[in-house]
Amino acid sequence: MAMETVSTNKAFGGAQGVYKHRSSSTGTEMTFSVFVPSHAAGAKLPVVWYLSGLTCTHANVTEKGEFRRACAELGLIFVAPDTSPRGEGVPDDPAGAYDFGLGAGFYVDATEAPFAKNYRMWSYVTEELPALVAAEFPADMDRQSITGHSMGGHGALTIGLTYPDRFKAVSAFAPIVAPGQVPWGEKALTGYLGADRAAWRRHDAVALIEDGARLPDLLVDQGTADNFLDGQLKPELLEAACGAAGIPLTLRRQEGYDHSYYFISTFLADHLRWHAERLG
Amino acid sequence: MAMETVSTNKAFGGAQGVYKHRSSSTGTEMTFSVFVPSHAAGAKLPVVWYLSGLTCTHANVTEKGEFRRACAELGLIFVAPDTSPRGEGVPDDPAGAYDFGLGAGFYVDATEAPFAKNYRMWSYVTEELPALVAAEFPADMDRQSITGHSMGGHGALTIGLTYPDRFKAVSAFAPIVAPGQVPWGEKALTGYLGADRAAWRRHDAVALIEDGARLPDLLVDQGTADNFLDGQLKPELLEAACGAAGIPLTLRRQEGYDHSYYFISTFLADHLRWHAERLG
Repeated sequence: MAMETVSTNKAFGGAQGVYKHRSSSTGTEMTFSVFVPSHAAGAKLPVVWYLSGLTCTHANVTEKGEFRRACAELGLIFVAPDTSPRGEGVPDDPAGAYDFGLGAGFYVDATEAPFAKNYRMWSYVTEELPALVAAEFPADMDRQSITGHSMGGHGALTIGLTYPDRFKAVSAFAPIVAPGQVPWGEKALTGYLGADRAAWRRHDAVALIEDGARLPDLLVDQGTADNFLDGQLKPELLEAACGAAGIPLTLRRQEGYDHSYYFISTFLADHLRWHAERLG
Repeated sequence: MAMETVSTNKAFGGAQGVYKHRSSSTGTEMTFSVFVPSHAAGAKLPVVWYLSGLTCTHANVTEKGEFRRACAELGLIFVAPDTSPRGEGVPDDPAGAYDFGLGAGFYVDATEAPFAKNYRMWSYVTEELPALVAAEFPADMDRQSITGHSMGGHGALTIGLTYPDRFKAVSAFAPIVAPGQVPWGEKALTGYLGADRAAWRRHDAVALIEDGARLPDLLVDQGTADNFLDGQLKPELLEAACGAAGIPLTLRRQEGYDHSYYFISTFLADHLRWHAERLG
């Protein structure tokens, strides 16, 4: 589980690092970024996980997310994994589409050939990388929270709903709330998990809630000018599921905001404050 | 002087735009970005100019600068020009080096062939683009300030020192303070302006101060872990010139920071607050 430092840069008094390691989950080299704020010697800090969207790597949020000022103020470690395995021999979408394969792991452990060997992002993000972060950084693993954007919002919601005791706060930006009901999700879950929709339900936030998963509360920001709002994101489905389940959802429809990092960067500090309140 | 909108994205309540236009100064199409905060109808806002460094376009600071939150709070328009002409027929460094030619205009009007035709970034940034900004945006051109990074810090200092009445605040990040005394500057000024060093002095902040240019005060941030500190930047030369001239210079040596946007983004909001105080 050796980890190699790709780069570190001082920022907002802390250290923004990029690291790579050989992943046993994916069978590939994986790159991720971690921001560690300035802290007292020996202190352990809460950890916020940020899962990125389609086409992204760790770099998008690291460069454009504008999270470091708030993390420094609040004393939060911020971890940003990649969105899929990459490298020679890793199968991609047969047509090279952006919404499946490379950059589009959908935070599942694939069961279908030829993806099952490498596309194990669920295990990577929920088991292997947390163990590495716990070993290598001043992380208090009893205080974790999770957020993400779009496909990564889907990942944050499904992982948060699956491990409500591990994550003290769960939020999302423009998440795919019901992949089983929209084209991006239907394509990905078919490709990674096969045609049996029963196997999809634990990777679908709305289905998880319908099947009994619960959270103490949930924060979601969604831009009203998001091109993917009606076709792929459908926050009203999450609203209905949370309403039926009694999950207090704060769904903020942000007027005029789109699907880009201009939207995320505007509200990410808000989310971090909300996480910090719940991380204690 | 028609301007075309490349993109606009809502961010921090305002509009982050990217625009292009045909420049009469450079004879090329030029791209720049402007952030306009939310403002009352009919209001005119002060304008902060940000000049970028070697290899950059408008995009680097626009994506990585983390200036929008502060600009929104302070009510500042933020303009980021490109660093050189670009496009077919624009001559580049003969060896394709990063420090001359494309991405490296050095904010001068070249007099040497073959660069004199297109490399007129001084005129572009001090005349043509301000006229366009005044015409197209809710800009109060009586309240302008200027800052920049590295080569763009050089540009901000030399332009600020040349037009002290126009710019109510001048600051810089890791500027090339004395291009006539360092390799980057000697190469660029020779290539653009010729071998006669007398012609360089009005494009050299330290020489301008030695020759009598004055500012009411000046803010400079410089990382101590900057790779270019000793060879190219030499803030001690600015310190000496300001000391001799009686210019109050606040030179902050920021421990452990490098030359990257991780450094700039950490301190850009500080600069904007300092500018806002002087812009009234």
